[in-house]
Amino acid sequence: LIILHFWWLLQADCPTTVHGLQSIFQEQEMTETVHDTEGHGYLATFIGKNGRLVILRVTALGLLTIDLQCCEGDNIVQVENLLNTLEEKLRSLLHGNIKRVKRLPALTRGAAVDRYWPTADGRLVEYDIDRVVYDEDSAYQNIKIMHSRQFGNILILNGDVNLAESDLPYTQAIMGRGKENYAGKEVLILGGGDGGILAEAVKLNVYIDQMVIDGCRTHMRKACGSVLDNLKGECYQVLVEDCVPVLKKYVEEGKTFDYVINDLTAVPISTAPEEDSTWEFLQLILDLSIKVLRPTGKYFTQGNSANLTETLALYEEQLGRLSCPVDFSKEVVCVPSYMELWVFYTIWKK
Amino acid sequence: LIILHFWWLLQADCPTTVHGLQSIFQEQEMTETVHDTEGHGYLATFIGKNGRLVILRVTALGLLTIDLQCCEGDNIVQVENLLNTLEEKLRSLLHGNIKRVKRLPALTRGAAVDRYWPTADGRLVEYDIDRVVYDEDSAYQNIKIMHSRQFGNILILNGDVNLAESDLPYTQAIMGRGKENYAGKEVLILGGGDGGILAEAVKLNVYIDQMVIDGCRTHMRKACGSVLDNLKGECYQVLVEDCVPVLKKYVEEGKTFDYVINDLTAVPISTAPEEDSTWEFLQLILDLSIKVLRPTGKYFTQGNSANLTETLALYEEQLGRLSCPVDFSKEVVCVPSYMELWVFYTIWKK
Repeated sequence: LIILHFWWLLQADCPTTVHGLQSIFQEQEMTETVHDTEGHGYLATFIGKNGRLVILRVTALGLLTIDLQCCEGDNIVQVENLLNTLEEKLRSLLHGNIKRVKRLPALTRGAAVDRYWPTADGRLVEYDIDRVVYDEDSAYQNIKIMHSRQFGNILILNGDVNLAESDLPYTQAIMGRGKENYAGKEVLILGGGDGGILAEAVKLNVYIDQMVIDGCRTHMRKACGSVLDNLKGECYQVLVEDCVPVLKKYVEEGKTFDYVINDLTAVPISTAPEEDSTWEFLQLILDLSIKVLRPTGKYFTQGNSANLTETLALYEEQLGRLSCPVDFSKEVVCVPSYMELWVFYTIWKK
Repeated sequence: LIILHFWWLLQADCPTTVHGLQSIFQEQEMTETVHDTEGHGYLATFIGKNGRLVILRVTALGLLTIDLQCCEGDNIVQVENLLNTLEEKLRSLLHGNIKRVKRLPALTRGAAVDRYWPTADGRLVEYDIDRVVYDEDSAYQNIKIMHSRQFGNILILNGDVNLAESDLPYTQAIMGRGKENYAGKEVLILGGGDGGILAEAVKLNVYIDQMVIDGCRTHMRKACGSVLDNLKGECYQVLVEDCVPVLKKYVEEGKTFDYVINDLTAVPISTAPEEDSTWEFLQLILDLSIKVLRPTGKYFTQGNSANLTETLALYEEQLGRLSCPVDFSKEVVCVPSYMELWVFYTIWKK
């Protein structure tokens, strides 16, 4: 179902305007229904051939909106022409009474290729996605890899854009923006199943959803290179395990690292009770991670959208409640495929 | 007018589903109209209090869509609850028959603060704009400066996002990405009325819409600094003039530059006849600019959205038809506020 729509802000309530459009709907053999809105402006619907629907409203405040819905398989050129005709007619009818006109790109719903993946701060954005590369449910989550013309393949976990092949700035940000020397260092990466960090780093241990590895190894090679082809390399080992027992074992053994990079999950957006467990999980991982960090070590992690200031403040509060006192710095980074600025943290022992 | 909407992809045509929703509409005292779609699925509209409108469709292919329109001043929590109730009811009615569910952020139309500024490649994107800082019509164009929470103030010329205070990567890209040494060089900037390049550069001459200068001097200071406070500085001069006669005069006088930075306009998107003049203008500026370029000089300019490959190919063809033969390179850059990747060109004399 495709919705074409525009709206006009008028100088005043122009109820006679809509009558001027009737001849267009008649030509299209559309059936008109005028609805009683109990004083909330003019509202009419028009049903035409091929399941076309036009919704025409004029509010008392002078807002005129037209929605045109058409079904898959309809002649889109004809439909656009109808909208153009309506727009031209309105321009001549309303000449001089128009304060603002806005026509937006069509919204497509129910398509095989879904192009709408809202940002973490809840904004509607349309991606230039032209095909679904991979779409599977693992035991943990839905894993999609979709192809964007500009960003390359994009990994989308449970509807959240995770990483695209264009997103080297994400990987660089969560590795300290090129200011760290990883040579000869021991690095522990938590999460990062897309292989992006692994491809950039030297020596590491990772825990991830095996299916994310499988999908990314094949479809995200610009991000992960060949590092996911083998779970064990000369200087790295990929553990597909729950990272909590692994971390606990390291703490018990006294095993420590120069860098811990936590790429498991963004800071939870909601503070609703059902998110409590995510906050607790975050705290647990953070506490264990700091414990396996060497005194001069650094802990890198993503925060969330720069706009989610309350969420980030909660996270920073949490940093003050760890069993070992820490300091932190943060940076705002533009990750190409995110369509929003993203906050990254560097944390170290006081 | 706010539109809340979601869609469901079902296993099969489930026409009985919609009857299960009737009790909800009755509770809301909404008036139902079932429309004859001549075989194109089920379509009903429901009108409620405060001018609320629900459009319920189920197509033969099993796509169920619900649109809920409400007017400014309506109780948005109540409206969201209604949508939640419909969603819950549908989940229980359709249990096991749901292939996909998608609920998108609400679309707001006619608001004082317009948050929808489509990309150059025609995609719908919502910005985090919270206020209009400046909105004036000059003799040439509409000039808006709007505040985005993440990008700072954004300059929007005739509906096109031009530059935000976050967009240093744009300025750096059009100045050669930090690889040029501007010390002691003579630089000619065409366009760039936002002052971004001027703030980064050393010695230059600029032509711009005086009103863009005025708006940016006050509201885009993170981009332009103080360079627009005076049209003449120690090492720069701003000319608020048509740049064509100025360029022609330079050619006549034999005046040349080390760098010419053309920030006048993006490559025209359309190749429709009405855009012919823009292409001709582009060719004219390009030809004159290359003429005032020293043999070792560089010409920097923006191209357009990385997705507009045909447009960019046309531009590159044009580069082969200049009166002086040139070579070029291009780079794709992520400009934070653009929400799309952008192409920049470096051009030099063969």
